[in-house]
Amino acid sequence: MTITQDASTTVSRESESLRSLYADWSDIMANTELTMRLFRSIFDEWHQPTTEPEDVTYKEETVGGVPGIWAFPAGADKTRVLLYTHGGGFAVGSASSHRKLAAHVAKALGVTTFVPDYRRAPEHPHPAQIEDGVAVFDALLERGIKAEDITTIGDSAGGNLAVAIPLALREQGKPLPGRVIAFSPWLDMENAGETLVTNDATDALITRELLEGMIAGVLGGLTNPDNPLANPLYADFTGFPKLYVNAGGAESLLDNATRLVDKAQAAGVDVTLSIAPGQQHVFPFLAGRAPEADQEIAKIAQWYRA
Amino acid sequence: MTITQDASTTVSRESESLRSLYADWSDIMANTELTMRLFRSIFDEWHQPTTEPEDVTYKEETVGGVPGIWAFPAGADKTRVLLYTHGGGFAVGSASSHRKLAAHVAKALGVTTFVPDYRRAPEHPHPAQIEDGVAVFDALLERGIKAEDITTIGDSAGGNLAVAIPLALREQGKPLPGRVIAFSPWLDMENAGETLVTNDATDALITRELLEGMIAGVLGGLTNPDNPLANPLYADFTGFPKLYVNAGGAESLLDNATRLVDKAQAAGVDVTLSIAPGQQHVFPFLAGRAPEADQEIAKIAQWYRA
Repeated sequence: MTITQDASTTVSRESESLRSLYADWSDIMANTELTMRLFRSIFDEWHQPTTEPEDVTYKEETVGGVPGIWAFPAGADKTRVLLYTHGGGFAVGSASSHRKLAAHVAKALGVTTFVPDYRRAPEHPHPAQIEDGVAVFDALLERGIKAEDITTIGDSAGGNLAVAIPLALREQGKPLPGRVIAFSPWLDMENAGETLVTNDATDALITRELLEGMIAGVLGGLTNPDNPLANPLYADFTGFPKLYVNAGGAESLLDNATRLVDKAQAAGVDVTLSIAPGQQHVFPFLAGRAPEADQEIAKIAQWYRA
Repeated sequence: MTITQDASTTVSRESESLRSLYADWSDIMANTELTMRLFRSIFDEWHQPTTEPEDVTYKEETVGGVPGIWAFPAGADKTRVLLYTHGGGFAVGSASSHRKLAAHVAKALGVTTFVPDYRRAPEHPHPAQIEDGVAVFDALLERGIKAEDITTIGDSAGGNLAVAIPLALREQGKPLPGRVIAFSPWLDMENAGETLVTNDATDALITRELLEGMIAGVLGGLTNPDNPLANPLYADFTGFPKLYVNAGGAESLLDNATRLVDKAQAAGVDVTLSIAPGQQHVFPFLAGRAPEADQEIAKIAQWYRA
């Protein structure tokens, strides 16, 4: 395992925009009886801390039956694809809320990305999200993209999916992606983990209560919280692709990342963990705005090209 | 005056997505005590009926002190700019909610567009929005763009601004834009007009009550509703640029468009009015999705190039 961690303990002024968006959402959630409709509306603001990356074009397409948005950075290698599964507790977030983030990463890596609008919980419980991810993966292969040139990548619940999709592919005897990237993955469907407590004061968004509702939605009383495809902390990582995991040092889900890394490392996986001190959940949303996010994405590009 | 109107009276299935978004917002507004914060959140969904236009790149920049988003269609003439002021009652909407719409229009016209995030009411009442628009216009001239190669364009309240910005420029003795385009302009700050009544049953979004709140916000008790810069229906259109105005046949603000056209025509302005039967407020939001919007934008391109 390679652990990279910055020495600094302060955060940039610019990174405050993500914390303040989360604080604002938390305030709304605490004081308003939000319908799922409005919950989705505010989480579609997730794109706001991310700048528009320059020199990237977009295209809506349905791939493998799943609608989504392609991002094509100028000069990108079109034979290489990031299959980017967005976060939002499996219930909120969208291709639209994550378009700019996925495009920033693709641009730094010199590749293309497809961000599917997978079916969301609670209307569609587990494993609908994984099925959609696998369908996109299969369709990319049919288009002539090599499995090894696909990277599954995602943040939060989408980081879970980025890990679970290869696990599902392995179960189905299919080829695996060449690499997996998980930003602040949310894996623990048992809603445990000590950073839920120890980082509760510094995390501006994630609480055990918020996660509880999302777990109920995605598991739907149909799937056990220790099912390895719903909760990859219970998965066997033997033969798993090269893995990059990051997290913010201030976030409640920090030990989802560290437990994933421990587990994968024990199974012999080539793992890199990057923790950004003082940063919030999915701090790469600050791409183009805060140095911590841009440095992190540059680090990922180095890892990707190695 | 040229009036172009389609013969068909039915609307496409695809154009339903805009009506249903409006119906959904209306339902939320009727049943929830929305803060301005949440009001802005749901109106940032305005981009949803619009597809991602292909072959367009974006760049965030502050122009004349006003932040905003540039859209650069591939091969666009960079000496020609649409200064696109977004709608939303002067209070909601953003560069982000209108990025795709502005980009579709710019692409069809073969030019670039800048969508400013002008200061919004009620925090910033009239004439803050016009001041920001003029500041962007001035900055474009300083960059070497010719006034005649700038088109002020906008929808709804932003259509008001697209008309009011040239009026303000004229007052200041400055050169005027070469063309003005107003999509479903909202002009009447006295909140009158017969289509508020006659189209009340078919308009899925606009009501007199909704407008009343927005008028209070933008005028702020400081500006009279017959002030020609706040309500261009009271303006003198002598020497006004070539003007294109459209509206949906089903919308409550339809006679804002027709009254503007009558007024401008009486002053000798070269005016084109396009009414799309059965369509809702700012139906070009259906760009890339519904034929009515794409045909309208093609019509505008023809007008622009004539």
